[in-house]
Amino acid sequence: MQAAGASDEEAGAVAVGCVNANLAGHDSHGVIAIPTYIDRVKAGHIVPGAEWTIVRESPTTTVIDGHWGFGFHVNAKAMALTIEKAKTANVAACTVFRQSHVGRLAAYPMMAIREGMIGLTTADSGRSPKHVAPFGGREPRLGTNPISIAVPSDLEGPFCLDMATSAVAAGKIALAVARSEQIPKGWIIDAAGRHTTDPNDYRKGGALLPLGGPEGYKGSGLAAMVEVLCGLLTGLGFGVEATGRHNDGCFMAVFNVAAFRPLQDFKKEVAEFALS
Amino acid sequence: MQAAGASDEEAGAVAVGCVNANLAGHDSHGVIAIPTYIDRVKAGHIVPGAEWTIVRESPTTTVIDGHWGFGFHVNAKAMALTIEKAKTANVAACTVFRQSHVGRLAAYPMMAIREGMIGLTTADSGRSPKHVAPFGGREPRLGTNPISIAVPSDLEGPFCLDMATSAVAAGKIALAVARSEQIPKGWIIDAAGRHTTDPNDYRKGGALLPLGGPEGYKGSGLAAMVEVLCGLLTGLGFGVEATGRHNDGCFMAVFNVAAFRPLQDFKKEVAEFALS
Repeated sequence: MQAAGASDEEAGAVAVGCVNANLAGHDSHGVIAIPTYIDRVKAGHIVPGAEWTIVRESPTTTVIDGHWGFGFHVNAKAMALTIEKAKTANVAACTVFRQSHVGRLAAYPMMAIREGMIGLTTADSGRSPKHVAPFGGREPRLGTNPISIAVPSDLEGPFCLDMATSAVAAGKIALAVARSEQIPKGWIIDAAGRHTTDPNDYRKGGALLPLGGPEGYKGSGLAAMVEVLCGLLTGLGFGVEATGRHNDGCFMAVFNVAAFRPLQDFKKEVAEFALS
Repeated sequence: MQAAGASDEEAGAVAVGCVNANLAGHDSHGVIAIPTYIDRVKAGHIVPGAEWTIVRESPTTTVIDGHWGFGFHVNAKAMALTIEKAKTANVAACTVFRQSHVGRLAAYPMMAIREGMIGLTTADSGRSPKHVAPFGGREPRLGTNPISIAVPSDLEGPFCLDMATSAVAAGKIALAVARSEQIPKGWIIDAAGRHTTDPNDYRKGGALLPLGGPEGYKGSGLAAMVEVLCGLLTGLGFGVEATGRHNDGCFMAVFNVAAFRPLQDFKKEVAEFALS
């Protein structure tokens, strides 16, 4: 990363983010992505050493322009500031635009739980090509639009949700292709909008399906709300940008548990709940 | 409601809440529930004229004890205060405990959109009997734990998500029983944990399934987060209370759009996105 122009801080953020994704079992968001990031630097889509500026702010809110910097670095800095604001204000939120891939989404709300706060992060893929067909639709119009929430607890591991609002991630389709396996009905449709169990149909104009199968209107509804928070509230807009430049719009919010009840009691009960 | 002891304000809140649910097409949360509310008043589970007190607060947060009042009234008052706080603070959140049924969840975030804010509300059924089996489980351990998000827009109707994190609501099973119809696979399991299409199995010790079918770990994950926000952050706790007294734990948050970007631009784009 440094040879490609990244600063120590940027290279460190990408390295830590990727390795942590591998360690968490999400190889799709791990070091496998680094050649892509290098390609994007070469194409000018990622700008090493980019500025990080606050466009608008209040004691509880921040709008951050990442100036096409590395998402791992831009977004972590945004979450760190949001946590700082919540230390005083109890609740804080931010939007981040013009940054590259943020990697595994859980990394950001997990920063909040170390400070005794509940963290919420949603991301869209900015105006990159879309992969998910809305419920009942035939064409991909939405991203996999993930949601991640992390909660402080006395558990050894983090109590954390990190999910795409599509039925599955595109990586699982690629895996099935590589293994020459069929996929379950309900994961994708083909170019004509028909359900299919052949993973090769995905790259031939098919689309991922939203979470929920016959109740996919719920997955699509969640995806639409993520798009509103990450595409529209950030000012990125919706639809596909002609340049194909990848930008992750993010919305993040943190809630200081101590403003609601004693943190120690809460952490103990979350652990009891998780183990029950 | 007034004959049962409700004040003008309480009776008005219940009436408006129920009729609006009917008008939105959710008859399960409409006037059909009023006899149940009267029964709860008679049993002492709902307390007409109950106090409404703030247990803990900051400029952005409020913890509210409803003292077993009508949920329609208690929760609307909580959301109104949260919106007031966000007018100054841009972001605000509250928890509400010890209140009866809040009705259709969308009613509360929709209060926020009238003030140019994004509203988020989650609810569990407190420690009432549970109806949803966690993914891969056999016994009901979670409520239908709904999530509702509403967003200001230039659309004629509200841009609003209001969904249970179970595959379907229990009301749909009751409807199938009443109509002597089979239900799709994926809605419920029977008492032995087997998938079934016979809706009668639900009342014979069965359970609803989480949203997502084969990807039901996502629906269960969302339900667990709702339980944490509404049961644990409120201090209600989890599991079933022996008395069977119904209490809706609620978590609500609002985000003032104008703190992030001009409201008019945002409302216009949400409408364009929704219609695209």
